[in-house]
Amino acid sequence: MAFDTQSLRFDAQGLIPAIAQQEGTGEVLMMAWMNAEAVAKTLETGRVTYWSRSRKSFWVKGETSGHVQELVELRVDCDRDCLLVIVRQSGPACHTMRRSCFYTAVRNGDEVEILSPMV
Amino acid sequence: MAFDTQSLRFDAQGLIPAIAQQEGTGEVLMMAWMNAEAVAKTLETGRVTYWSRSRKSFWVKGETSGHVQELVELRVDCDRDCLLVIVRQSGPACHTMRRSCFYTAVRNGDEVEILSPMV
Repeated sequence: MAFDTQSLRFDAQGLIPAIAQQEGTGEVLMMAWMNAEAVAKTLETGRVTYWSRSRKSFWVKGETSGHVQELVELRVDCDRDCLLVIVRQSGPACHTMRRSCFYTAVRNGDEVEILSPMV
Repeated sequence: MAFDTQSLRFDAQGLIPAIAQQEGTGEVLMMAWMNAEAVAKTLETGRVTYWSRSRKSFWVKGETSGHVQELVELRVDCDRDCLLVIVRQSGPACHTMRRSCFYTAVRNGDEVEILSPMV
């Protein structure tokens, strides 16, 4: 069946969450949002493109930082309201220069930093 | 620093997305939503507990199906508006009986089923 971005279930703001996962290692790098056009751009260009809710504009991941996400595969969940994007991440995915945005773990009730910034 | 569920950034509905990832294999199993109390319950009980937006009630994953998610570790992202839950998933995570909800891949413009239901 041909994939149609309009078959996805977007929220009231026209957005769908997209989880970025590194190919091979399986690291969950980040979660951000796409609109239908960002999904289409991601598929067309092979560069993962989100919709920035704060800037209200497309966000080609790594366009300014160089920390691009090359698309390996886009996957859709059973409810069609969440995307999993398998990527090849160059350098850190997080704006804090950490490999993943999920660098804070909750252990025994305390927050523990489990990833350091990449140098 | 002590973890406080109120330090998380919930959306206008009081919810935060939570990504479930299998310990060890790194499989991304599903994404669902938690409110502050579901986060607290998850940490207290060690059983991953979501908030069902459709049923408007707590959803202890696997309570009826037996396909429970045992909490290994809760992680918070840099913006504090998304959670990554490392779990030990019993059987399928998806209501379609597939291991993961992300069983549909987009390849060359077509949808391809990449996981079959578990038997």
